[in-house]
Amino acid sequence: MALRLGWLGSGPCWRALRGDYGQLRAWSPRSASARVPRLPGTAGTESRRGLGHSPSAGGGSWLGTGLAAALAGFAGLAAAAFGHVQRAEMVPRSSGARSPSPGRPEEDSDELARRCSAFMTSPVTDLRELRKRPEDVKTKMELMIMDIQAQVCRALAQVDGVADFSVDRWERKEGGGGITCVLQDGRVFEKAGVSISVVHGNLSEEAANQMKGRGKVMKRKDGKLPFTAMGISSVIHPKNPYAPTMHFNYRYFEVEEADGNTHWWFGGGCDLTPTYLNQEDAVHFHRTLKEACDQHGPDMYPKFKKWCDDYFYIVHRGERRGIGGIFFDDLNSPSKEEVFRFVKTCAEAVVPSYVPIVKKHCDDSFTPQDKLWQQLRRGRYVEFNLLYDRGTKFGLFTPGSRIESILMSLPLTARWEYMYSPPENSKEAEILEVLRHPKDWVH
Amino acid sequence: MALRLGWLGSGPCWRALRGDYGQLRAWSPRSASARVPRLPGTAGTESRRGLGHSPSAGGGSWLGTGLAAALAGFAGLAAAAFGHVQRAEMVPRSSGARSPSPGRPEEDSDELARRCSAFMTSPVTDLRELRKRPEDVKTKMELMIMDIQAQVCRALAQVDGVADFSVDRWERKEGGGGITCVLQDGRVFEKAGVSISVVHGNLSEEAANQMKGRGKVMKRKDGKLPFTAMGISSVIHPKNPYAPTMHFNYRYFEVEEADGNTHWWFGGGCDLTPTYLNQEDAVHFHRTLKEACDQHGPDMYPKFKKWCDDYFYIVHRGERRGIGGIFFDDLNSPSKEEVFRFVKTCAEAVVPSYVPIVKKHCDDSFTPQDKLWQQLRRGRYVEFNLLYDRGTKFGLFTPGSRIESILMSLPLTARWEYMYSPPENSKEAEILEVLRHPKDWVH
Repeated sequence: MALRLGWLGSGPCWRALRGDYGQLRAWSPRSASARVPRLPGTAGTESRRGLGHSPSAGGGSWLGTGLAAALAGFAGLAAAAFGHVQRAEMVPRSSGARSPSPGRPEEDSDELARRCSAFMTSPVTDLRELRKRPEDVKTKMELMIMDIQAQVCRALAQVDGVADFSVDRWERKEGGGGITCVLQDGRVFEKAGVSISVVHGNLSEEAANQMKGRGKVMKRKDGKLPFTAMGISSVIHPKNPYAPTMHFNYRYFEVEEADGNTHWWFGGGCDLTPTYLNQEDAVHFHRTLKEACDQHGPDMYPKFKKWCDDYFYIVHRGERRGIGGIFFDDLNSPSKEEVFRFVKTCAEAVVPSYVPIVKKHCDDSFTPQDKLWQQLRRGRYVEFNLLYDRGTKFGLFTPGSRIESILMSLPLTARWEYMYSPPENSKEAEILEVLRHPKDWVH
Repeated sequence: MALRLGWLGSGPCWRALRGDYGQLRAWSPRSASARVPRLPGTAGTESRRGLGHSPSAGGGSWLGTGLAAALAGFAGLAAAAFGHVQRAEMVPRSSGARSPSPGRPEEDSDELARRCSAFMTSPVTDLRELRKRPEDVKTKMELMIMDIQAQVCRALAQVDGVADFSVDRWERKEGGGGITCVLQDGRVFEKAGVSISVVHGNLSEEAANQMKGRGKVMKRKDGKLPFTAMGISSVIHPKNPYAPTMHFNYRYFEVEEADGNTHWWFGGGCDLTPTYLNQEDAVHFHRTLKEACDQHGPDMYPKFKKWCDDYFYIVHRGERRGIGGIFFDDLNSPSKEEVFRFVKTCAEAVVPSYVPIVKKHCDDSFTPQDKLWQQLRRGRYVEFNLLYDRGTKFGLFTPGSRIESILMSLPLTARWEYMYSPPENSKEAEILEVLRHPKDWVH
């Protein structure tokens, strides 16, 4: 059963807040108003790990696995109307915690506020609400994805060294909102987006029917089906053809039935799309994901690795989009807590699985031919996302969804040449072979 | 009722002929082996007409209207397997007619052979077969689209002045084949493709069911439904941001029932996609189409103009792909002959509606900002073609279809920036306004 992001489609209508995106190339480093906060003791942490993937790192804070999915559009569903959102103000490095709720300064120094001070901006849900339900998986998931967003943005901004992430915060009229962080046209990154959404409301008739089609028959309460959906979604496109593109997302969904029963499930994944094959990188990426999965059972990685190869298949090309990773959906056993811990482990593996690779290659020398091949592969990325990716398509076809958050997954530039076919035994043919016949990178 | 190109989906499996497309950038002018034939007396004909659109030209050979549609993928369905097709050999300018059928040299000088000598290569159907049924609309349509392919390629190659069209000829295992002509990376054109397909066989169960869904219930003969489909499809992307992209196609479909009844219909259209608005160009383009339509009735242009605006709508952007033109489908009255004449008039309007515009602007000066906006609009073109265009999607999802002929419609390069929004009162905002609120260009 595949997660149909259609369930988010309860006819959202995003409330415009404020914004000033009338300028061309508004996202130059100079114009971005929000700086990534760097916490003492965390900056540069990822540099301690090399590509050798030290097993001891398995217990560290970078631990885990990235998650990939059809979620490119997920965050977009939980976003404000196109073109008008709020540019979030960041916590200055020296300020400590931001006030979690106006009028309650006595809580500034509490644990939650301290945790929030490292986020790109305040969580979507009011801190007073989060404090009321600290043990609820919804609270844990929201804080976890906020953590991951900040971790990933911080690590990438450090690698880039020049450009910053912009931070767009938006609200959803029917409930919830999101935070979209984008770094564009940097030194290292062509386009890097890390988007979060936390939305709630009542499922539309159409969405409820879609769930029915997937075997989930829900008992309505006064004709309504309250739901909560939240997730993080990210696509990172570096400039250098030897630094691969990476995508990850993870998400949580909950629907409340009339009899008080709650249906819930998690989905997600993480996958790598190199322009050229680098065996060492492929092994590092997959091994990091496998080690994260293995903490939760020996069957997870093999199953989700295959699922990933199957999902990211560009049917009309007979190729995968990239060299895979992991992908899963509808995870709802053995328990909410246990699956959450698995997803958290996966999410925490994003930075250690990817950042060492991009650091290693972002300054590699390359030829115009290398760039051309990268651009052609970018074209394939666009083909997959627009033709096959469930999250992207669902998001785009849902009235009121935030298009810019959905399409931040597309590369800055792409190319299509008629009848382009690389010579035999070339570097280009080498990666094509792997895209046509996925390999097992770790055993 | 919309034409579902699914009807072509009788499980085609294309026979590879021969080819040598292992080189990078194989389509540079120097490597293209096929030169566009220039016939005495026809070269430069289009230059006699200016943008003023002389009414007297209505009776000339450039007469007619362009047709647009979901047909970007149509030709691709009738194409050989990816990567291996036959590079057609062209008729030398001095050779007169090519031998229409080996062993029958006495027919070299006949009317049909003379007509064929102006084509990009021999028709898909053997000349002996065409001679047997000179009054059949299938024969007339095939020769007409061959004519138009040569007309358009010749006119565009003249404007480009440097690059040539490559000519790929392919066969379909189950019957028929096609001819794909592409000019890539020229002086004036970034990518210009003009593709023809003429296919026949038996409709698959799935395709027959699709027709049923559209109200066409067919009586099978021994479980089979013989069909013939043919069409021309073209997308022209110039390099200069002030020279607009143009798309046209027209197509004919015929299905034979058990009782001998024949279902038939035509579809097609022609539309313009400028980067910046030029009122004079818009009026010229639409007026040329209108004058072609008006020859066949006063209601044609208004109806097909609106259909075009409705069809080329990028729902998630709230914009049309371009400034429209005409679009129609399922045209099957009053008679085969009469609709064919209308379609022919439309097809003959392609060159006079478009070529004067591209000639006028191909050497316009432009800024990097103009090029950036063009690339962003190219991104929207990709979004429409991959997300909405019925022909493209059907073609890509049909096993065995010729992907390269379908995706020749994509621009050479495209760009996506997060949250790009042009300043108020800019040239960029001016065209966006028209894409959001289509105008009537002629009355």
